[in-house]
Amino acid sequence: MGSVVVQNPQSISGESAVAGSRNHYLDRFKAVRAYSEAICDKLVNEDFVVQSMPDVSPLKWHLAHTSWFFETFLLKPHAPQYEEFDPHFAYLFNSYYVTVGDRHCRQNRGLLSRPTVENVYRYRGHVDRAMRRLISDSDSAVFDRVAPVLEIGLNHEQQHQELMLTDIKHVFWVNPLRPAYTDRKPDAECAAAAGMKWIRFNAGNRKIGHDGDGFAFDNELPRHTVYVNAFELGSRLVTNGEYKRFIADHGYERPKLWLSLGWATRQQEQWTAPLYWLKSPDADQWIHHTLFGLRDVADDEPVCHVSFFEADAFARWANARLATEAEWEIAAVETERPDTPNFAESLSCRPLPATDQPGLQQMLGHVWEWTASAYLAYPGYRPPPGALGEYNGKFMCNQFVLRGGSCVTPASHMRPTYRNFFTPDARWQFTGIRLARDV
Amino acid sequence: MGSVVVQNPQSISGESAVAGSRNHYLDRFKAVRAYSEAICDKLVNEDFVVQSMPDVSPLKWHLAHTSWFFETFLLKPHAPQYEEFDPHFAYLFNSYYVTVGDRHCRQNRGLLSRPTVENVYRYRGHVDRAMRRLISDSDSAVFDRVAPVLEIGLNHEQQHQELMLTDIKHVFWVNPLRPAYTDRKPDAECAAAAGMKWIRFNAGNRKIGHDGDGFAFDNELPRHTVYVNAFELGSRLVTNGEYKRFIADHGYERPKLWLSLGWATRQQEQWTAPLYWLKSPDADQWIHHTLFGLRDVADDEPVCHVSFFEADAFARWANARLATEAEWEIAAVETERPDTPNFAESLSCRPLPATDQPGLQQMLGHVWEWTASAYLAYPGYRPPPGALGEYNGKFMCNQFVLRGGSCVTPASHMRPTYRNFFTPDARWQFTGIRLARDV
Amino acid sequence: MGSVVVQNPQSISGESAVAGSRNHYLDRFKAVRAYSEAICDKLVNEDFVVQSMPDVSPLKWHLAHTSWFFETFLLKPHAPQYEEFDPHFAYLFNSYYVTVGDRHCRQNRGLLSRPTVENVYRYRGHVDRAMRRLISDSDSAVFDRVAPVLEIGLNHEQQHQELMLTDIKHVFWVNPLRPAYTDRKPDAECAAAAGMKWIRFNAGNRKIGHDGDGFAFDNELPRHTVYVNAFELGSRLVTNGEYKRFIADHGYERPKLWLSLGWATRQQEQWTAPLYWLKSPDADQWIHHTLFGLRDVADDEPVCHVSFFEADAFARWANARLATEAEWEIAAVETERPDTPNFAESLSCRPLPATDQPGLQQMLGHVWEWTASAYLAYPGYRPPPGALGEYNGKFMCNQFVLRGGSCVTPASHMRPTYRNFFTPDARWQFTGIRLARDV
Amino acid sequence: MGSVVVQNPQSISGESAVAGSRNHYLDRFKAVRAYSEAICDKLVNEDFVVQSMPDVSPLKWHLAHTSWFFETFLLKPHAPQYEEFDPHFAYLFNSYYVTVGDRHCRQNRGLLSRPTVENVYRYRGHVDRAMRRLISDSDSAVFDRVAPVLEIGLNHEQQHQELMLTDIKHVFWVNPLRPAYTDRKPDAECAAAAGMKWIRFNAGNRKIGHDGDGFAFDNELPRHTVYVNAFELGSRLVTNGEYKRFIADHGYERPKLWLSLGWATRQQEQWTAPLYWLKSPDADQWIHHTLFGLRDVADDEPVCHVSFFEADAFARWANARLATEAEWEIAAVETERPDTPNFAESLSCRPLPATDQPGLQQMLGHVWEWTASAYLAYPGYRPPPGALGEYNGKFMCNQFVLRGGSCVTPASHMRPTYRNFFTPDARWQFTGIRLARDV
Repeated sequence: MGSVVVQNPQSISGESAVAGSRNHYLDRFKAVRAYSEAICDKLVNEDFVVQSMPDVSPLKWHLAHTSWFFETFLLKPHAPQYEEFDPHFAYLFNSYYVTVGDRHCRQNRGLLSRPTVENVYRYRGHVDRAMRRLISDSDSAVFDRVAPVLEIGLNHEQQHQELMLTDIKHVFWVNPLRPAYTDRKPDAECAAAAGMKWIRFNAGNRKIGHDGDGFAFDNELPRHTVYVNAFELGSRLVTNGEYKRFIADHGYERPKLWLSLGWATRQQEQWTAPLYWLKSPDADQWIHHTLFGLRDVADDEPVCHVSFFEADAFARWANARLATEAEWEIAAVETERPDTPNFAESLSCRPLPATDQPGLQQMLGHVWEWTASAYLAYPGYRPPPGALGEYNGKFMCNQFVLRGGSCVTPASHMRPTYRNFFTPDARWQFTGIRLARDV
Repeated sequence: MGSVVVQNPQSISGESAVAGSRNHYLDRFKAVRAYSEAICDKLVNEDFVVQSMPDVSPLKWHLAHTSWFFETFLLKPHAPQYEEFDPHFAYLFNSYYVTVGDRHCRQNRGLLSRPTVENVYRYRGHVDRAMRRLISDSDSAVFDRVAPVLEIGLNHEQQHQELMLTDIKHVFWVNPLRPAYTDRKPDAECAAAAGMKWIRFNAGNRKIGHDGDGFAFDNELPRHTVYVNAFELGSRLVTNGEYKRFIADHGYERPKLWLSLGWATRQQEQWTAPLYWLKSPDADQWIHHTLFGLRDVADDEPVCHVSFFEADAFARWANARLATEAEWEIAAVETERPDTPNFAESLSCRPLPATDQPGLQQMLGHVWEWTASAYLAYPGYRPPPGALGEYNGKFMCNQFVLRGGSCVTPASHMRPTYRNFFTPDARWQFTGIRLARDV
Repeated sequence: MGSVVVQNPQSISGESAVAGSRNHYLDRFKAVRAYSEAICDKLVNEDFVVQSMPDVSPLKWHLAHTSWFFETFLLKPHAPQYEEFDPHFAYLFNSYYVTVGDRHCRQNRGLLSRPTVENVYRYRGHVDRAMRRLISDSDSAVFDRVAPVLEIGLNHEQQHQELMLTDIKHVFWVNPLRPAYTDRKPDAECAAAAGMKWIRFNAGNRKIGHDGDGFAFDNELPRHTVYVNAFELGSRLVTNGEYKRFIADHGYERPKLWLSLGWATRQQEQWTAPLYWLKSPDADQWIHHTLFGLRDVADDEPVCHVSFFEADAFARWANARLATEAEWEIAAVETERPDTPNFAESLSCRPLPATDQPGLQQMLGHVWEWTASAYLAYPGYRPPPGALGEYNGKFMCNQFVLRGGSCVTPASHMRPTYRNFFTPDARWQFTGIRLARDV
Repeated sequence: MGSVVVQNPQSISGESAVAGSRNHYLDRFKAVRAYSEAICDKLVNEDFVVQSMPDVSPLKWHLAHTSWFFETFLLKPHAPQYEEFDPHFAYLFNSYYVTVGDRHCRQNRGLLSRPTVENVYRYRGHVDRAMRRLISDSDSAVFDRVAPVLEIGLNHEQQHQELMLTDIKHVFWVNPLRPAYTDRKPDAECAAAAGMKWIRFNAGNRKIGHDGDGFAFDNELPRHTVYVNAFELGSRLVTNGEYKRFIADHGYERPKLWLSLGWATRQQEQWTAPLYWLKSPDADQWIHHTLFGLRDVADDEPVCHVSFFEADAFARWANARLATEAEWEIAAVETERPDTPNFAESLSCRPLPATDQPGLQQMLGHVWEWTASAYLAYPGYRPPPGALGEYNGKFMCNQFVLRGGSCVTPASHMRPTYRNFFTPDARWQFTGIRLARDV
């Protein structure tokens, strides 16, 4: 989720909108910033320091980087009285914005004992106070320039909120003590996952991409026509129980089921199950590391923490395939969905079983759904000008699109046109599988 | 060009076709087999041994592997009297067919002094004699099963003919003596490359993919509908002269022009020009290693040996983009093309300048043209059953499609629907750039 | 300093010795344990977590590992009432004792946010209380077995005290904020380093190795005869000023001055100066990272943080050589030394200039002195039996001996026969250069 | 065996010596040069090209490099009429003489198809003719300067003769066809290896190092005094049968037997037996790759192709140790040896069993014997001046000394003071084990 966001110009233009939007933005700003800190509530200082692999960032880095974003793109250009908190932070907390200046090497983020967690929180407070003043008191010409970037900044921080939960799960995984993130008990699983049905969609030209209302990332634009063949989509996500059958049927030992690069990765990494799965001490049963600590792998929950390679191999084993992102989006917008999305606000901290209702379930929340689509520019795509927009498209290579959000995505951050993307070997995100097939 | 081929079923069915086709196939078999050896005519034994990098195979491996293909997929199953030449060869010369058995590690192909070149030629003769008998004398039920696989085998050998020229160029490149492959002199460049024009194509639904006549690889199937926006295509390939301006304008030093992964590759590999380019001893002028030895880089010839990353960065610098493979194919089939394709048979051994004629030039031959399309399955694609078809789709990940063939591709091997594919960092193929843009 | 220690049997036998030694050991135990914690006094929790490179361990690991040593080798075998603090710790805090059980991968020590620093201190308290009881109250047969291992445990903890200071210096070095370990100001340099003189020693048979009084590591045994040629030793350590002349004379650019492996290392690591040296912002002057933060490189202080390769190259440049360990030890015991050793207790936190006195200076403390001797077994060396002694000799390969201790070595830990050892590329220790030459 | 050699000055001074020595040198020059080519007699061109690992050089490189040595250090400086054969060769065939100029990267020697084998032989002929003229016809002042370097060049070529046999064995090993170097049959083993006895040597001061008669490498100088404790040496080499017992006793699975670095290497390389050993197809019996092709491992032959790490672990398992190089040399010169050395001239192409005679056997030839001594400078060692002597000592780091020569060493190249050296993980040389122990 390295994507930088860009304001859809229509979404915040209009004078009356601006008038009401100061309070609106102020409230959202407070809420989003508070939620980042709420995520860290139960953690101790040492938990904020560790980088368990290069893809993971320490929590204090996330907390500081999201603040640096507001400082760099709003306070420094638009708040003349703003005093920089610490000049080193521009170097330490820049992620990859080349034009903004040099930056600390990503894979070394875990080598920094300083700044302390306390200092990072002070930094957040410093930025928060200045941002609240800027939102409330800037004159309206300034606010007009501030609002679109603020929108981006809030979405950016929401992306990092998901990453914080994803990353702390991994930090605790590499620790033989296997700490739990939360001391809550997960709700008992009530329902068995319903049998999977196939929902049919007809061939023809459709439009996909963001349609102009509300915020969207630039990579969701422009809305454009695609032709799709008729196709069918699985009514729910693939479950752990189904995935166990794939494993038991030697799915991880049959190269014919895998892409060539997937098989090479599986060999090198010695994958035999999804990330976080372990055999129980008596080697009889699958258990997995979760935000609640080690738990049994529940058959009815959606399978999670699989790579694109595993999702693709599973689909081939099941005589199906993954959906293209166009198919997924068409299905998501053309169908009534009976279920409530399972986003971060549900506090479920894990994907939940499908219910027995008819129709297309689990499209939003639970797990990100790998698609068969490489992450590429939409026809007519133009990266926006300037530092913020500069790098929107630069990740469009060797990654695959995921759709729908997960149980650790903030609800207000998600929409059916949202395009997430990761390399096909990534497993530490909350990623799962929905099947599709030709008619 | 790792793709395994599959017969388009329509192309060789029909009884009368079979009757005449024995002679046809016999002639083609002889011609294709002879051309592989003709490529090696001027080389010495030592040249057949070296593997200059993992992507390159030694020439003797190519000569043996193409023979192994006929032995494994035709002689062993269909010629009961056939005696295997050497049982070790099944291991040594299998490329990646997992179901056919274990195989020698690709990157160690250059560690084999034995079998000798002479022995490999004996192997070819052994296979040739048996194949000619099989084509001529098999009863017609057998021949019906043989013919489609034979077709594949011939196309397979043609792919390796291109690789042989591509690989020996690289083998000579890593040698400080910089030997020339041919002692012919290249023809003098007569024409200056014409100015580039933009050819327009309208929006709408189109069909792309192979249409049923003649042979095609499975990845060209099925023919299917796509919707394209209106677009324009450059009338000719990008030239060395234009590429030098990109270099002079610091194209290799501006990260904003590059994909993130491209920039990382450029940094790590320290690219500052296309593969094979060198500064002349007085550091004043670009020269490059060619099949003729070291030569000046001619401004009017198409630029060659650039990666997808460089093609993409150049296009961005030129305020254009690469074409999608659908756009490229539509342009290739909807347009009269004034020029003669420059394939291997022209013996040019290099891409040639465009001429001053109007219309779309250089679409076939010269250099493979990088497209903006990731190499993925066409809608409804099904890999054919059995060992040969087993792996058709397994390379559909993290590669980009190239179109049109090159100056070292056999003419009879190419067609507008042909999909070649390489990873975005590959440069040792004869690969170049055609620009496209939105209307 | 991975060496495991072994009691010299003579040193604690004798009944009267035992009687007085309970108090003696209790006092020493308290003092040594307290000093480990005093080292960390000024640090914050985050500083205890980071592992800046594989050779470095996080501070909390040192604090726990030294406690694990007492728990494993004394409390578990000899204190029947002892309750293990946490069964996971046996895995987490074992360093390399294969027979004692599996252990956490060394290079992943920085991935552990838990146990918290607070918990590690609780662990220390738990072990301390049990150890104090064991020392005071065990019956005398038990105490007789306890005492030799206790001696080892105290020396082991002292080794880690040196490592803690060495490691935290490196942890702060990789941090662009370059924190200082101490906020004390270093004393002003008063004296200019005296000119170096050569002290002569005669040829003949000598005895080296520990002689039986007091504690020694097993690798200092047995005392044995060596023959040495006549030699001369430099009267003081090589200074920063002298080392700057080596740099200015292109010492880092002349392969003829270097061992082949040293030159390869220098090339790969791009060394151009000792570790921690930087050019000042105006690139005019050398500054270096110290426990006091960034400071000017003082010409009269001994050069520090050089590898064996650099020490060897410097000596060649200076038309001298490094001393063998036999020469060093002979010189140390045969000479009156006028100066006070500069050990950790001096709180200097850095090597100090030599004074103007005659004779051999700076032999003890300041910096470890690289010798020309590979770290190998003394003639007749026998590793002691059992887990503790099991691995004494297993590091005797591809390392070089260092002598004399450094400014961060506890004084009571050092003696002239002490053999420290590191690989020839190690630089993060406080290591420097003394010259020798043939007569 | 990277050592560069230096003439012991005494060995060729004296006027009468010079007079007779032209013919002597001419004969030796012809014989040594002819033997290099005789080694390659049965090989085909392809065998000269392959580099099976970085430590191995292609045969044609050895043939050319040894010629380059004469061209560079004798013909260019001393034969004014000499015309360089090919100016590129100075770059291609320099091994590591930095002062002589740039050189082709060692690990890329196998990437060169050109110069052809034929051309390399022409190069040899060209150099041979010029060298013969120089030896015969140079005036005597010139010849005085030529002779010492010629001596070095001949010894240098003999070193490469051993490497050629060692390297071709490895080249054939990595080839699944497992070609044999020779089609001769090995003589039947007649004798069972005698039981090992211990030969005792007394303590005291001794002199080791070359004593001034005949040629020696600089690293054998100066002759100097050492003190040794009393010790015992095994009367013969360790046999395959004894080594099989080490394997059967889980020697490769018990870390306590190994040096720490040895165990890490064994783990990483997954060693379970000496290099070239394989389990027979029925997994019942050890076979090994030899210069005769695959053969059973004969119990009575000395074990060969073990690393220092394995030799050291075996010795520990056998309650013994390796000898120091001083002990080895003392034993070799103080003892009557009953057996005939097994050098290259015996054409045995393998180590042979010990016989039943009393006394110290197998000290010369058969296999190089690993010693416990790190390869370091003798006291008073001075590298000779100039390009040839420049690098004599530069390999004195992280290598161990081997003594005695092997079955592929030319007899005239060996003497008891000869110090060979390799890194402790090297196994492709003909290296074996002799045990020692304290008295």
